Amino acid sequence: MGSYMEMLAKLAKEASREAAKLSTDAKNSGLLAVADELVAQQGLILEENRKDVEAAQAKGTKQSLVDRLALTEKRIADMADGLRQIAALDDPIGEVLRMKVRPNGLRVGQKRVPLGVVGIIYESRPNVTADAFGLCFKTGNAAILRGGSDAINSNLAIVRAVKAGLRKVRLSQDLILLVEDTGREVVNEMMKMHGWIDVLIPRGGAGLIANVVENSTVPVIETGTGNCHIYVDASADISMAADIVENAKTQRMGVCNACESLVVHSGIIDEALPRIVRKLKAHGVEIRGDERAQAVSPKVIPASEEDWGTEYLDAVISVKTVDSIDEAIGHINRYNTGHSESIITKDYGNALKFQDEIDAAAVYVNASTRFTDGFEFGFGAEIGISTQKLHARGPMGLEALTTTKYIIFGNGQIRK
Amino acid sequence: MGSYMEMLAKLAKEASREAAKLSTDAKNSGLLAVADELVAQQGLILEENRKDVEAAQAKGTKQSLVDRLALTEKRIADMADGLRQIAALDDPIGEVLRMKVRPNGLRVGQKRVPLGVVGIIYESRPNVTADAFGLCFKTGNAAILRGGSDAINSNLAIVRAVKAGLRKVRLSQDLILLVEDTGREVVNEMMKMHGWIDVLIPRGGAGLIANVVENSTVPVIETGTGNCHIYVDASADISMAADIVENAKTQRMGVCNACESLVVHSGIIDEALPRIVRKLKAHGVEIRGDERAQAVSPKVIPASEEDWGTEYLDAVISVKTVDSIDEAIGHINRYNTGHSESIITKDYGNALKFQDEIDAAAVYVNASTRFTDGFEFGFGAEIGISTQKLHARGPMGLEALTTTKYIIFGNGQIRK
Repeated sequence: MGSYMEMLAKLAKEASREAAKLSTDAKNSGLLAVADELVAQQGLILEENRKDVEAAQAKGTKQSLVDRLALTEKRIADMADGLRQIAALDDPIGEVLRMKVRPNGLRVGQKRVPLGVVGIIYESRPNVTADAFGLCFKTGNAAILRGGSDAINSNLAIVRAVKAGLRKVRLSQDLILLVEDTGREVVNEMMKMHGWIDVLIPRGGAGLIANVVENSTVPVIETGTGNCHIYVDASADISMAADIVENAKTQRMGVCNACESLVVHSGIIDEALPRIVRKLKAHGVEIRGDERAQAVSPKVIPASEEDWGTEYLDAVISVKTVDSIDEAIGHINRYNTGHSESIITKDYGNALKFQDEIDAAAVYVNASTRFTDGFEFGFGAEIGISTQKLHARGPMGLEALTTTKYIIFGNGQIRK
Repeated sequence: MGSYMEMLAKLAKEASREAAKLSTDAKNSGLLAVADELVAQQGLILEENRKDVEAAQAKGTKQSLVDRLALTEKRIADMADGLRQIAALDDPIGEVLRMKVRPNGLRVGQKRVPLGVVGIIYESRPNVTADAFGLCFKTGNAAILRGGSDAINSNLAIVRAVKAGLRKVRLSQDLILLVEDTGREVVNEMMKMHGWIDVLIPRGGAGLIANVVENSTVPVIETGTGNCHIYVDASADISMAADIVENAKTQRMGVCNACESLVVHSGIIDEALPRIVRKLKAHGVEIRGDERAQAVSPKVIPASEEDWGTEYLDAVISVKTVDSIDEAIGHINRYNTGHSESIITKDYGNALKFQDEIDAAAVYVNASTRFTDGFEFGFGAEIGISTQKLHARGPMGLEALTTTKYIIFGNGQIRK
C-alpha cells in the first residue's frame, strides 16, 4: 500500500469497519454535529468558495456553471438542513429480511448491512460533498469523495467542517475522505481499487459516467442520463396530455427526468399536437418533428434521426408520429436511456401493455416524468437515479447504499 | 452491428423482449419440452460429448477435469430433472413490491422484471449449459452462453436439443445462444457489450473471474472463491466444534463453501485442537498452523503467511491461534474472501458480535459453512454464489436474475 489513493482507501476501509458498528443514535448525533459545524464555519467556507468562483470566472466559465459552483449563506443552510433531514430518516441498517427456519432447524435470515467504502466521483456542485457524506454515513459507510478540480477549495473547506463536526462527537475523521489531488491519474487509480472501494457512483454528465463505466474495476452504479418520452395514445385525454407534456418539458429543463421526446398516435395527432405545441411555444420550446408532425403544425421544424436519441437538457423537444402502441413501444425501447417514460391514455389494456413492455426504471401512466426522484417517491433522500439494472434501478435512497448478508443460527448442524 | 458477437447480442436482445412477455405457463411448458428433448436426444449428446472427452484425454488433461467434462445417461437425466425442478418453482417475475400512494395520489410500486440478456462465461462442465438456460429462461431472460472450448461439441449438442424443445412449443430459438467461436477475441468482445448484455456472470476458477472483473464494461456478478473460516471460541462446545470442522473441511473438499482455515481461541486450544486434529487426520487432511498450534499438536506442521490467504480446495487446512474474539474477527476480515464464516460458541454476546462484525456473504453461529448453497437456503435453484456486495450477495436463486422497475399510476399529476 504505497500510493496516495491506496492510503486513502486503507483509511476508509478501517473507518468503514467502525461505521458499521455505530448505533443509529451515534450516527444521528454525528449528522447533527456536522450540520451545526457547517453553519458555524460558513464564513470560512464562503471565503474558500469565492476563490473557486473567481478562478472559474477568470477562466471564462459559462455563467450557468459558475452558478452551480457558487455557495451562499442560504445554500450552506440548505446543506445543513439536508443533513438534519437525513438524521430524521429511519436507519435501514440491521433490518432482518425474510428469516426462515429450514427443515434441519437452521434459521436463515438476510440482514441489511453497509456496503463498506463508497466512492463518489462528481463535478462542480460543492453541495454534493456534504450531501453524499450524509447519505453514506447514515448507512454506516465511509465515503471517498472526488469532486471536480473547479470546486477544490470549496470542497476542502466543507470537508474540514465535516471532520470538525465528527471530532466533536468523537467519531473518526476518516469517515469522509476527500481526494485532494484532482489530477486524472488519481481518479484512474481510484477506479481500479477493486476490493478496497466497494462501489463507485459517478454523478455528473454523460462523459464522466461513460469514463467510469469504461474504466472501473470497482462495481459501478450508473446514474443519470434521461432521454425520457411521453406517448400520447389514441385514447388520451388531450387536455391532460397537454398539461403533462408542458410540465415534463418545461417545469425544469436541464434535469434528467425532463421529457425530451413526444410520441403521438396518428389517430389523435390532428387534435392533440396543436394544443401541445401552443403550450410549449409559450415557454419558447423548439419542436422538431417527423413529416407527419410537421404537416399538422407549421411550428414543428424537421427532426433528424439524431434527434430521437438526444437528451437535449434544453428548450427543445422531438415529436414522433406512430400508428399503434406497438410502434410507440418499439420506438421508445430503441431510443430511450432506461430512465422515465409515460403514456397518456384512457385505455386499460394500453396502460398495462405500456407498463409491461417499456424497458425503463420508471414507467408512468397519466403522470409527468418529472416525478422520478427520491423525494417524490417518498424515500426522503436521493443519492442519484440509477439507469442500470443491477443492484438499484430508479431513484436511489438510503437502501441503495446498503447490501445484505445472510445470518444463520444453528445448534450444531452439519451437512449430510 | 457487424461482428459475430454483435449479431448474437442483437438476436438475444430481441428474444429477451419476447421472453419478458411470456406467461409463467408458457415458460414452464418450454422448460418441460426442453427437458424431454434432452432425454430424447441423449444419444446424440453422448456421441458429441465423447469427442470432447477423447480430445481432452489426447491432450493429457487431468482425470478430475475429464470427469467434469464427461456426460452419462444419468447426468443427462439429471440435467432434464433440473429443468423440471425449475419449472416447479414460483415465477418471481411480475411481483409488485411495496406499492404506496403518495400524498398527490400517485401510486408508486416496484415491479420485479427480467434483467434482459444474461451472459454466462464458464469452463468445462457441460451441464451448466442446460442449467443456466433454465434459470435465465424461467426469469424471462435470454441467455448468451460462452462455455469452454474443451466442451464445445457437448455444448453444441445440448443447445441443439434445447432449441428443438423450444421449437416444439413455438418459442424463439434465440432464447439460448451459444458462442460457437471459443477464441479469446470473441470473449473479450462479449465483455464490452455494455448496453446489449445486461449482466455477465462468470462461473469457474479464480483466473476466469478475475479476467472478467478486470475487463468487462458489462456489469458483472462475481461468484465463487471461498477462503472460509471456522472460529472456535473459548466457550465452544468442543464436540460440536470438532464435528462441524470435520464436516466443513471434509464433506466435500473442492467446493467454495468448504472450510479452509481454523481459528482457535488460546483458552480452549489445548483441549479442542487435538480432538479436531484427530478427526481431520482420519480424512488425510494436512494441518498447517502457527507456533502455538504446533506446540499443542505434533501433527500440525508450520504455516506460512501465505497460508492465511489460501483457498486450498484440497485436503489442507490452516490453524491460527488468537487470544480474543476481536483478534479472530480482525484475522478473518483481513484474509477472507467474503464467502462463509462460522463461529462455534455458547456465548450470546460473542455470537452476535461475530455475526455483526464479520464481513462476508454468510455468517454462521454453530453450523457448518457447507450450507451456503441455494438449495440448502431453500431457494430451489442456484445460479452461483455471489461474493460481491452489489445486487446479490451469497447464494443466488431466481431473484438474482431479475431487476425491478417502478410502475406509477396517475390521473393527471404534474409536478409543482
